[in-house]
Amino acid sequence: MTVDWRSLADAKRQSILDAIPAKWRIQTPIPSPSELRDVTGYIEQFLTARELEITGNDAVDIAKRTTSGNWTAVEVTEAFCHRAALAHQLVNCLHEVFFEAAIEDAKRLDAYFAEHKKPVGPLHGLPVSLKDQFHVRGVETTMGYVGWIGTRGVSESELVRELRNLGAVLYCKTSVPATLMAGETVNHIIKYTTNPQNRLLSCGGSSGGEGALIALRGSPGGFGTDIGGSVRIPAVFNGLYGIRPSSGRIPYEGAANSMDGQNTILSVIGPLATTARSLRLLFKAVLSQEPWFHDPLVLEVPWREDIEREVGALVKQSAADPSQLAFAVMHDDGITKPHPPIARAMKTVEETLKKLGHRVIEWKPPSHRIAVDLADQAFTSDGGADIEYHFGLSGEEPAPQIIVATKLTHKTALEVAALNVKKREYQKLYMEYWNSTAELTGTGRPVDGLICPCAPHAAVIPQKYRHVGYTSFVNLLDYTSVVFPVTRADKTIDVSQPRTDFLSEADKLTYEDYDADIYHGAPAGLQIVGRRFQEEKMLALAEYIGEKVQEASQ
Amino acid sequence: MTVDWRSLADAKRQSILDAIPAKWRIQTPIPSPSELRDVTGYIEQFLTARELEITGNDAVDIAKRTTSGNWTAVEVTEAFCHRAALAHQLVNCLHEVFFEAAIEDAKRLDAYFAEHKKPVGPLHGLPVSLKDQFHVRGVETTMGYVGWIGTRGVSESELVRELRNLGAVLYCKTSVPATLMAGETVNHIIKYTTNPQNRLLSCGGSSGGEGALIALRGSPGGFGTDIGGSVRIPAVFNGLYGIRPSSGRIPYEGAANSMDGQNTILSVIGPLATTARSLRLLFKAVLSQEPWFHDPLVLEVPWREDIEREVGALVKQSAADPSQLAFAVMHDDGITKPHPPIARAMKTVEETLKKLGHRVIEWKPPSHRIAVDLADQAFTSDGGADIEYHFGLSGEEPAPQIIVATKLTHKTALEVAALNVKKREYQKLYMEYWNSTAELTGTGRPVDGLICPCAPHAAVIPQKYRHVGYTSFVNLLDYTSVVFPVTRADKTIDVSQPRTDFLSEADKLTYEDYDADIYHGAPAGLQIVGRRFQEEKMLALAEYIGEKVQEASQ
Repeated sequence: MTVDWRSLADAKRQSILDAIPAKWRIQTPIPSPSELRDVTGYIEQFLTARELEITGNDAVDIAKRTTSGNWTAVEVTEAFCHRAALAHQLVNCLHEVFFEAAIEDAKRLDAYFAEHKKPVGPLHGLPVSLKDQFHVRGVETTMGYVGWIGTRGVSESELVRELRNLGAVLYCKTSVPATLMAGETVNHIIKYTTNPQNRLLSCGGSSGGEGALIALRGSPGGFGTDIGGSVRIPAVFNGLYGIRPSSGRIPYEGAANSMDGQNTILSVIGPLATTARSLRLLFKAVLSQEPWFHDPLVLEVPWREDIEREVGALVKQSAADPSQLAFAVMHDDGITKPHPPIARAMKTVEETLKKLGHRVIEWKPPSHRIAVDLADQAFTSDGGADIEYHFGLSGEEPAPQIIVATKLTHKTALEVAALNVKKREYQKLYMEYWNSTAELTGTGRPVDGLICPCAPHAAVIPQKYRHVGYTSFVNLLDYTSVVFPVTRADKTIDVSQPRTDFLSEADKLTYEDYDADIYHGAPAGLQIVGRRFQEEKMLALAEYIGEKVQEASQ
Repeated sequence: MTVDWRSLADAKRQSILDAIPAKWRIQTPIPSPSELRDVTGYIEQFLTARELEITGNDAVDIAKRTTSGNWTAVEVTEAFCHRAALAHQLVNCLHEVFFEAAIEDAKRLDAYFAEHKKPVGPLHGLPVSLKDQFHVRGVETTMGYVGWIGTRGVSESELVRELRNLGAVLYCKTSVPATLMAGETVNHIIKYTTNPQNRLLSCGGSSGGEGALIALRGSPGGFGTDIGGSVRIPAVFNGLYGIRPSSGRIPYEGAANSMDGQNTILSVIGPLATTARSLRLLFKAVLSQEPWFHDPLVLEVPWREDIEREVGALVKQSAADPSQLAFAVMHDDGITKPHPPIARAMKTVEETLKKLGHRVIEWKPPSHRIAVDLADQAFTSDGGADIEYHFGLSGEEPAPQIIVATKLTHKTALEVAALNVKKREYQKLYMEYWNSTAELTGTGRPVDGLICPCAPHAAVIPQKYRHVGYTSFVNLLDYTSVVFPVTRADKTIDVSQPRTDFLSEADKLTYEDYDADIYHGAPAGLQIVGRRFQEEKMLALAEYIGEKVQEASQ
C-alpha cells in the first residue's frame, strides 16, 4: 500500500489554517518576502491597541499582571492566540493550534483567581508556546513527520503537566524540521518557516517555529530542545534570548524525540524568550515543580538562589571594580570564520566589555575539530535507522537540509563505548583548559564565561547551513549556554573582505555564501558559554552583557 | 609467542609477599580454614598493644587524633601497614603493597604538622586503602589481569590526587576479581580472597580485598567501585558499612575500569568502613575537593549540610514522634528468597523499627525481573569483547565465577539506544511507585528508605553466587544504597525450612545451597536504599538503624 504522503501533508497544512478562527484570517494578500522582508512591524496592523499593549510585554511583565489579577488570563490568552494566528499566516510557524482549549483553561484560571484571590502558580495566566515534541492531551504530535499525522497523545509530557500546575496557558505547538536534525525548519507539512525579520532567510532550527513565533511576539516565551544547537540557533537567528542548560535540569520525560535512547549526547530542553529575565522566570518555575521526582533523568538540583545572589553581587561590585569579572572571547573556532555581521557582533561585545574594564582573554581551546567529529559520530551512531523508520512510515522524502546518516556509520556497542570514552577525554581536556585560565584572569577564578558565535552567519540563507560546530561543541561538553542579541546585519557596514586563508572547505563555502544585501536586517547575536550546571550564573551574565551592549549601541 | 601466564601470575603473587618486610611475616603455620574459620581474633596475637589500640579505632576517631597531632601519621601508618601485611597473609587481600612510600608520606605529614601546627586536611594521617582500579604513581595496576602485570601508572587517578590533598596516607591496593564482574574475588595472581570471619566463604566482590582488609582492621576505610553491587556485596559479606552513591558524586576520572564507556549503567565509587560515620567522613572529604572541576562526569553537588541537618532533626524528633519516619521492607525480590540468616536479619530490622514506632510498609515494586534482565543486557552489551581482549593479553583462562558474555549479546547502537529507553521507562515506573507510597506512610512523604537484602545469602560459598539482582536493581535505577551490619549466621537458629514454592531456578538452587553449618558465623547485613542523590540522607538513616539494631541485640 502506498500512502499518498503529499495529500496527507497538504490536508494537515490546511487543517492548521482551518483551526484559526475566521476573524483572525488575513484577508488581504500578504506581500512576498522580496517585497517585504521584515514582517515584525507589518503584523501590528491586524491587532488592536490593547492586544499590542499586552503582547508588547515580556513574560515577566505579563506574569506580574496576570498573577496579581491586573490582567485576566482570558484577555492575555486571546491576544496571544490572535497574534500567533497572524504569525503563522506570515511565516508558517505553527504545527498545532488549540486556541479554544486555551481560552477554556484561561477561564478556569480567572475563576480560580476570583475565588481564591491568588494565582495558581508563578506562571498563572501566562501563555507559553511549545515545540512540537511535547504531547498535549487531544492534540497531535507530528514532529514534522507526515507519517505521524493522526497520532494523538494520550498522556501529556511531564513538562506540560508542570506548566499547567504553574498556571501557564498552552495554546499552540510550533514547527520543527522532521528529524530535528537541521538548523532550518522545513517539513512537508508547513513547508518552510521563514525568518520574521528577513523572510529571505531561515528562522533557524530545530526549534525554529518557537524562534519565529516569539520574534513576532506571538508568544512571550516557549520551550524548545537542543541537541546540537536547536534552542540557540533559532534564538540567535531571531534576536532572542535562549538557554541550553546542561542535561538533567528540565524534564524531558514523556516528550517525543529523535533517536531516543542515544545517550552519548543528550537532547535537553530550554526556554526561548525576548528577555533573559523571562528565561529565568520559566526555568525557575519549572524547577519549583521538583521535576526530579517525576523524571528519572533530572537531577535534584533546585534553582540555586545562593549562586544567583553571588553572581548578582559580582555584577554589582563590578561597576566599582570591573576587574572582578573576566571573560574569554573566541572570534572563530578554527574551522569556519564568521561572516562580517557576526565578526562585528563579536568585536562589539569585546569592546564593550573592555570599556567596562573587565578582563577579556583570547580563548585558545583544545581543537574544536575533535568536538565536531565526536558530535557527528554521536548523531549518526545508529546509521540513520531511527530517521529512516520515521520517514518510512509515510514514504516521504527527506528535505535536502536534513542530515541523513548512512548505514556505514552504524556503530556496535563496543564502538559506542569507545566514542563515550573519547567524549569524556575531550571533556576532561576542555575542563583542564578552562581551569588553566585562572592564571590569566586576575580574579583568582577561571573565566566567568566564554563569548563566541552561535553560527558563522546570521539567520542563514536556505540550504546554506554548512557548519554547526559553534553550537555542537557545547552539547558535546554538556555545558550551559545562553544566547543574547547584539546587533543586526547591515549591508552598509558588513562588507566582506577578500580572503584566501580558508580554514576548511566549509569555511570557503561559507565565505562565498555571504551576501551583504540578502543578509541585511538579520539579527546577529552571540552566546555566552559556561561550564556544566552554570545556568543561574550564565543567565545573570547574559542579562548583564545584553544590557550593556544595548546601552553601548544607543 | 605464548606467554606463560601461570609463571607471570606466580611471580607477581610472590612479589606481593616479598614487599612485606620480613619482620611482619607470619612464621608459624597458619591454621587451615576448616581448622579455624574466623581469623579476626587470630590476627591480634601478632600485633603490639599499641598497634591494637590504634587499629581498633574507626576512621573518625583516628582522624580526630591525627588531625589534632595527638597521634603521628607515621605511627598510625606503620600500625596499619603491619596489620594489612598480616591480613594479606591470612586471606590474600592485597594486590599492591607500598608501605615504604606510605611511611615517607606520613613523615612529610608529621613534618607539616610540626611546622604549621595544623593538619593538611580532614584526612591528615589517615591510612586509606584502594581497590586495585586506582592508579598510584610508581605502583602497578593489574585489576586481577595477568596481562596487565608490569604496567605502572604514570599519572594518578583523580581520587588519589584528592585523597593526597586531603592528607590521607595511601599504602596498599586491594584484590579484585579480573573483569570486576563477579561477587567473589578470584584471579590467577592472588588466587582467592577468603572471608576473614569464615574462611570457608567468599569475601565478596568485586571490591572484595577492601571488604576483607577492613574486616581484619588492616584498613580503617577504603574505596571500592560498584556497577552491580561491588561495594555493597563485600561490605555486607564482611559486616561493614558501605555506600553505593548515585553516579556523578565521587570522581572516577583516571581510574581503570572494565568495559569503559558502557554508559547504560555506570560504575560508581564508594567507600567501605567499619562505621557509617567513617563513610561520611570520607565521602564529605572528597566532595570538599570540588571534584566537578576535575572530572567531567561529576556533578556540582557539594555535600548538602541542609539535608544532613534536616534528616538529623527528623531522626532526633522521631524519639518523641516516631511516626515521622517511615520505611519499606522487601523480604524477597520475587526471584530468589533469601537464606534463613538473611531472612532473620530482615525480621530483626523490621521488628526493631516497628518497636521504635516507625511506620513500616511492605514494598510491592514493579517486577524486579525486568531490572535484572536490563542490567544483564547492559553488562553484556559488548558481547564480552572488552573482557576477551584483556584476558587475551596473557592468554589466561577466566575463573568460573566470571560472567563472560557471548558474541551473541553484542548489541548495535540502535539496540543500545533501545535498552537505554527501556531502562528509563523502568526508572520512571519505579519512581512512580516510590511516589505512590506517600499515601501509605502518614508522614506526607513517600517512604524514607527501602530496607532489603543485598544478596540471598550471607558471604557466599565459593562458586554459589547465583543471583545478583538484590544489588543490581539499585545500579539500574542509579539509586543510593548504604549497607549496614545486622547479625551473623547462626546454625542453632537459622534452620532451613522445607520449601517447594520456588520462584525461579536460581531460587531453587540457592535454597539447596544453604548449609547452616558452613554459613555459621558469616555476617548477615542488609541495605537501605534511597532514591537518586540521597547520600546524605541514607548515610544518616543507615547509621540510625545500625545503632538501633545493635542496641536491640544487646
